[in-house]
Amino acid sequence: MRKPTMADVARHAGVSLKTVSRVVNQEPHVSASVQQRVHAAISALGFRRNEAASRLARGATMLTIGLIMENISNEFYSRLAAAVEAAAGEHEALVVFGSYEERPERERMLIESMYGRGVDSLIIVPSAADHGWLAEHPGLTTVFVDRVPAGLDRADVVALDDVRGGLMATEHLLARGHRRIALISDDDELSSVHDRAAGYRSALRAAGVPVDESLVVRGVFDPWRAGHEVTRLLSQPDPPTAFFATNNRAAIGILQALRERPERPAYVGFDDFALADVFNPGVTVVRYDVRRLARSAVDLLLGSAPEPRLVRVPVELVARGSGELPPP
Amino acid sequence: MRKPTMADVARHAGVSLKTVSRVVNQEPHVSASVQQRVHAAISALGFRRNEAASRLARGATMLTIGLIMENISNEFYSRLAAAVEAAAGEHEALVVFGSYEERPERERMLIESMYGRGVDSLIIVPSAADHGWLAEHPGLTTVFVDRVPAGLDRADVVALDDVRGGLMATEHLLARGHRRIALISDDDELSSVHDRAAGYRSALRAAGVPVDESLVVRGVFDPWRAGHEVTRLLSQPDPPTAFFATNNRAAIGILQALRERPERPAYVGFDDFALADVFNPGVTVVRYDVRRLARSAVDLLLGSAPEPRLVRVPVELVARGSGELPPP
Repeated sequence: MRKPTMADVARHAGVSLKTVSRVVNQEPHVSASVQQRVHAAISALGFRRNEAASRLARGATMLTIGLIMENISNEFYSRLAAAVEAAAGEHEALVVFGSYEERPERERMLIESMYGRGVDSLIIVPSAADHGWLAEHPGLTTVFVDRVPAGLDRADVVALDDVRGGLMATEHLLARGHRRIALISDDDELSSVHDRAAGYRSALRAAGVPVDESLVVRGVFDPWRAGHEVTRLLSQPDPPTAFFATNNRAAIGILQALRERPERPAYVGFDDFALADVFNPGVTVVRYDVRRLARSAVDLLLGSAPEPRLVRVPVELVARGSGELPPP
Repeated sequence: MRKPTMADVARHAGVSLKTVSRVVNQEPHVSASVQQRVHAAISALGFRRNEAASRLARGATMLTIGLIMENISNEFYSRLAAAVEAAAGEHEALVVFGSYEERPERERMLIESMYGRGVDSLIIVPSAADHGWLAEHPGLTTVFVDRVPAGLDRADVVALDDVRGGLMATEHLLARGHRRIALISDDDELSSVHDRAAGYRSALRAAGVPVDESLVVRGVFDPWRAGHEVTRLLSQPDPPTAFFATNNRAAIGILQALRERPERPAYVGFDDFALADVFNPGVTVVRYDVRRLARSAVDLLLGSAPEPRLVRVPVELVARGSGELPPP
């Protein structure tokens, strides 16, 4: 049996770790009722306050947050990491990170490795693998970002308004007169990818445009493959006149493929990237405030609640040229 | 007085942390003489082995490496972070990161904050600030990456062959017939920037081309400012026909400025970036193996030596089009 931690006390009392730290540390500005709840939780769990005192002395209550994601060198993740660091810094928390790349089994290994070193507060961008095993791991506090984890009934999640993003991108292209709009997406077992595609389908249906499944490409995980699919679709007898890319890798694949092609199809990406406005035309994207994504995740992580929570961060369309090209 | 750590024992014995862990853990494959040195260091420092045993039991000897850099959302740093994570992973080490952005005082704060939480092995991309205070901090093991820290006589450093990079980029442009080559660089108090500029000057001198100081721009920290300087130089009566950008931010600024300009100057960047070959023309850059940079840093961090070490990672020029444009 693991000794109860301050995080356990926080969870039991339904307050943030910071609040437990304030109570244990006898800092001001904590209401009597909250103090009472924290002390009740300390008693109920058999949490030893002298341990807390010694951890405080060593600075160990300064939280370390684990950030687990696919690959920090991808711009979506490096921006997220910077934003999580900034949001964590407001709580004097450091961030330890781990990339599982295309190996979901490494995701579990990273979670357990962090836990084994006392990092029990985790922000996870989950792989498509089943996360049911986490339900048996009450010592961990987890918040999932960008995707709803599979196989977990109760989870705190901060995701984008993905359905709306897919809808906006597709409506934008439809409004310019496009009817043959291809979708380039990755693993639709990921809730984000699934929802963006659902928005795409919903916009087409609302416009009375039947979904042509030959224009729906799934399973594209890198720019090279995305470019290959774009070239293949453009070489067909009845090619698409526009593309919607559900992530930045797919958008970059479109850019790569179009460098070599005579056609000038319209395209809209999902996820902004630093060079999007340096291309000619600039790349039209669905974007969002990554700081808001990160801050919401840190807030959920540090503020416990009895029921699982789902926060949706809004998205917006930024027109820069590529999404406004007309059909030929 | 701080209690001696396993890292202190490693340093005192002149062996790696891993070796100390092997000896304390009574693992095989450690020579008798090394065992003796480690035990001598343990005695000399008063290191308590039962502490080591309890840390081992809790998995705490699994190392956490601190990575301190300017900003993880910049591609140079996110690539470095991914490579450090991979190299650290081979030693079962996790990586905690911190960004000091443009605030050198935050760099020191991050170092002390990590140290306060027991992270005493640090890889630092140092700011231009004086690092002399670290000499009074023997509990830390540090390796500096990309730049030689100011004010520190003895430091382990992994840097690029910056002089050669500056030389190669400038020689490449000279060989295409350019004589008016502008330099766009940032803070030349950083050894890397200083050395790249020295390579530029040296190539010009060797070619018998006098250095025109009006073409040497310093203090450019972001793409916007770099673009502004490019526009200013191109609007001069006797404009440059080529540019050498000493980092990726400056190269991106050149791309942004040229989007709006009629001129087609040649340009070479320093640091590769994911989209360099998607632009038209592709961006010619000085590049290097970031995994080698990271691996060397981790190796120096974990393998102690009596004398400070300087590793230079080689660079190469990748011609993609922008550096091969002729003068008008």
